[in-house]
Amino acid sequence: MKTLLIIGIGAGNPDYITMQAVKALNRTDVFFLMDKGQSKDALIDLRREICERYIEQPGYRFVEAQSPERLRGAEVDYQASVAELNRDKQRTFERLIDEELADGETGAFLAWGDPALYDSTIRILQAILASGRCTFEFEVIPGITSVQALAAQHKVPLNRIGRSVEITTGRRLAAGQVSDADSLVVMLDAEDSYRQVADQDLEIYWGAYLGTPEEILIAGRLKDVAGQIQQVRKAARQANGWIMDTYLLRKPED
Amino acid sequence: MKTLLIIGIGAGNPDYITMQAVKALNRTDVFFLMDKGQSKDALIDLRREICERYIEQPGYRFVEAQSPERLRGAEVDYQASVAELNRDKQRTFERLIDEELADGETGAFLAWGDPALYDSTIRILQAILASGRCTFEFEVIPGITSVQALAAQHKVPLNRIGRSVEITTGRRLAAGQVSDADSLVVMLDAEDSYRQVADQDLEIYWGAYLGTPEEILIAGRLKDVAGQIQQVRKAARQANGWIMDTYLLRKPED
Ligand SMILES: C[S@@+](CC[C@H](N)C(=O)[O-])C[C@H]1O[C@@H](n2cnc3c(N)ncnc32)[C@H](O)[C@@H]1O
Ligand SMILES: C[S@@+](CC[C@H](N)C(=O)[O-])C[C@H]1O[C@@H](n2cnc3c(N)ncnc32)[C@H](O)[C@@H]1O
Repeated sequence: MKTLLIIGIGAGNPDYITMQAVKALNRTDVFFLMDKGQSKDALIDLRREICERYIEQPGYRFVEAQSPERLRGAEVDYQASVAELNRDKQRTFERLIDEELADGETGAFLAWGDPALYDSTIRILQAILASGRCTFEFEVIPGITSVQALAAQHKVPLNRIGRSVEITTGRRLAAGQVSDADSLVVMLDAEDSYRQVADQDLEIYWGAYLGTPEEILIAGRLKDVAGQIQQVRKAARQANGWIMDTYLLRKPED
Repeated sequence: MKTLLIIGIGAGNPDYITMQAVKALNRTDVFFLMDKGQSKDALIDLRREICERYIEQPGYRFVEAQSPERLRGAEVDYQASVAELNRDKQRTFERLIDEELADGETGAFLAWGDPALYDSTIRILQAILASGRCTFEFEVIPGITSVQALAAQHKVPLNRIGRSVEITTGRRLAAGQVSDADSLVVMLDAEDSYRQVADQDLEIYWGAYLGTPEEILIAGRLKDVAGQIQQVRKAARQANGWIMDTYLLRKPED
């Protein structure tokens, strides 16, 4: 039998790693690293750094695989392109499990943040198991999400007393496909979609590169700070070559 | 200056603790433990266990305070009763910070799961600062939530590809105050509120005592398993004297 671990490593700060994750790292024979090219090199580096820092017996090995890229462009359907990407990834994962992991060994995928939030690794391993093409045991180890990093760094609760929180994407916010939950967390926003709701009376708590030395935090009335966020975001993206940001939008207390 | 830390300790498994939390525990002079009486003794014990396990220089002390209780009953407005409870807690916290923490010392509150999710500690410390009655520095350290424990133990993603996740309470579900986000996580449900939507075509992933030796997991079509969950829940609550459960409701894939 082969064992696979999906290990959440937290969303930025290496100290977000849990004891459970450290134990899992120390059980792992093979780490699968998915290379996404230039912009994500920093993330791969963090994965290697975490292994070096927390693994006591360095008997492990890394296996790198080219991560397939999602089709992009205005005419591409987002959900379909992600599903297609996941099929490509599934074939890559099947090959890795088949060729790079021996019986009795443990392989691990290191997931940014928590593996259950906007990450396809769980979905893909479940699809492989369902296809019957490989058999293995697998475990999921939770990690601190960027949503939690955002709340902690701004020192704000995610929810209002007894109310709901919706976690969504920039794409859905821009398309008006969000509910009226009074706390809305937006991830995966490449387009400054908060501008679409800047006419509403909302507070924003924005954070980029959360938990890292490059962290930037901006909070205030959305109307007042939307322009500043857009400028800071653009400049940071240029300076670093990439950006990861998340924000909480909330109606002011009534 | 006094320093306060709100440390998320994760929602059940002591190994959910992060390295950041371990470092914070080791900086702490005084741990404030809020006693909630019988049913929650197990939680206080876990807090002590975590301190014993992870603190290297045992120079710290515990200060226990009676935690005020929320008014309950059909005629009580939920939000108002929580707000009133928080005012009581605020007075207790102010006294603790005043009387039990010396200048230059660091005090800590250990929050179950993540301090930003359905927990009042952040809100109360912000209110104390805003009142101007005490001054201190404070930091928030995120922790693994029960939501993440639920997803990890069931090995399912929280969201469907590109879709939203709403986190809400049993009270809101029962009152029909939820959006049509296709993934809904329900917490704080004392009343088996999933029964209110058992006529809809939904999948449920239910978990109780997540991350602990008493953990129970049930998953399936809501229609098929609602009765079983209700029975198991009632029996477990009787056996243990208390229960904590969380569940994910989701429309089947279209
Ligand atoms: C593919 S999702 C993965 C989310 C991850 N699984 C988690 O738990 O946070 C990537 C998105 O997460 C958010 N994100 C991840 N890390 C972040 C960080 N350090 N600072 C700000 N946002 C971050 C951004 O919204 C980014 O677009
Ligand atoms: C006051 S809220 C606190 C939530 C906590 N801050 C967190 O991050 O999970 C308490 C609710 O969390 C959920 N919960 C907490 N720990 C749990 C566990 N170990 N298993 C299942 N549900 C849990 C239950 O829904 C419970 O009613």
